[in-house]
Amino acid sequence: MSQAGEQGTLFVISAPSGAGKTSLVSEMLRQDSRLGVSVSHTTRPMREGEQNGVNYHFVSRDEFEAMIARGDFLEHADVFGNYYGTSQVWVRETLATGQDVILEIDWQGAEQVRRLIPECVSIFIVPPSAEALRQRLVGRGTDAPDVVERRLAEAEEECRHAAEFDYLVVNDDFSVALADLLAIARSHRLTMGVQQVRHASLLSGLSGRS
Amino acid sequence: MSQAGEQGTLFVISAPSGAGKTSLVSEMLRQDSRLGVSVSHTTRPMREGEQNGVNYHFVSRDEFEAMIARGDFLEHADVFGNYYGTSQVWVRETLATGQDVILEIDWQGAEQVRRLIPECVSIFIVPPSAEALRQRLVGRGTDAPDVVERRLAEAEEECRHAAEFDYLVVNDDFSVALADLLAIARSHRLTMGVQQVRHASLLSGLSGRS
Repeated sequence: MSQAGEQGTLFVISAPSGAGKTSLVSEMLRQDSRLGVSVSHTTRPMREGEQNGVNYHFVSRDEFEAMIARGDFLEHADVFGNYYGTSQVWVRETLATGQDVILEIDWQGAEQVRRLIPECVSIFIVPPSAEALRQRLVGRGTDAPDVVERRLAEAEEECRHAAEFDYLVVNDDFSVALADLLAIARSHRLTMGVQQVRHASLLSGLSGRS
Repeated sequence: MSQAGEQGTLFVISAPSGAGKTSLVSEMLRQDSRLGVSVSHTTRPMREGEQNGVNYHFVSRDEFEAMIARGDFLEHADVFGNYYGTSQVWVRETLATGQDVILEIDWQGAEQVRRLIPECVSIFIVPPSAEALRQRLVGRGTDAPDVVERRLAEAEEECRHAAEFDYLVVNDDFSVALADLLAIARSHRLTMGVQQVRHASLLSGLSGRS
């Protein structure tokens, strides 16, 4: 029973590339209907098969920069010349309906979000070993060595910020890591602040105060 | 992989009588081997079928009062002329081995424990309605009305302290409430403080610092 005033939780999920974050988040969304994911804005060109408003909100650089100037973004980044950002309005409106929201962003985005929504819950996902990370990033071995090295350096940089997050999930076994993530989402709906709103009349009735 | 320094979490679970706490906790212990329960000290007489050190540590009033004077208890209470208490030494030693510990105590005990172990995680369990609580407390209808009324007044008093707890679990459907409790326990093992100790070498390896 969702009541007026019930507020969703914002989950910020970061990971080095190769940790399996995207597969884990898409399975979380499939299994937990109370979770929604934010669709980012970007200035990069739309690719074959992508849909505006589904994969991304595709906007021009001018529009994006106007949105930055208006403070529309909860977080944004310039990645190799393309902008990516999360709409603050959409996130706040969705949370206000009681729905939980997941943001898949990097440690720098997470830092920006924590400043604006300090009650967000942040989760860092890591692969089970440095060797496993290396193998996943090297992949099919078709990329140039300097590309692989840059990816590894970025992954290491990302991991240096793990301690800034509330939770650490190790993706050794996919189903265990998934259950870990679902347990974190579930437990946050049981926190007293959330439950006092949801069960206000039950609590006053049980206390003999209704 | 349990490493030196890994610290268990103390879970304090309270509820009005009739909320189903005892059945829920015993099923939690059965399903989650990392959870242990504290065996209380008491001065009440041992009953048929009970074992010293299993159901309770049975001690004399003199022994109990000497333990109070030494500050041996994490919490203690005088319930209808009998003492009940939780050994501080046992709890702290067990947590230090990395095992999680559940204490089933009332709101007053929970208040004492929070003062001594502020990092404990406290959970309050409630029945789904005031009517359900009344029905469970009235029970078979063989108790005198004043006994039933006292139990109800105590349950209401307990519920007035729900807001002091970290989590609220509503025991409407037993299996849902059990899954809620297990999710809370699981998520606390994934908090960064706990995980940084457990996965210290993984994190430094992933950051390129090993």
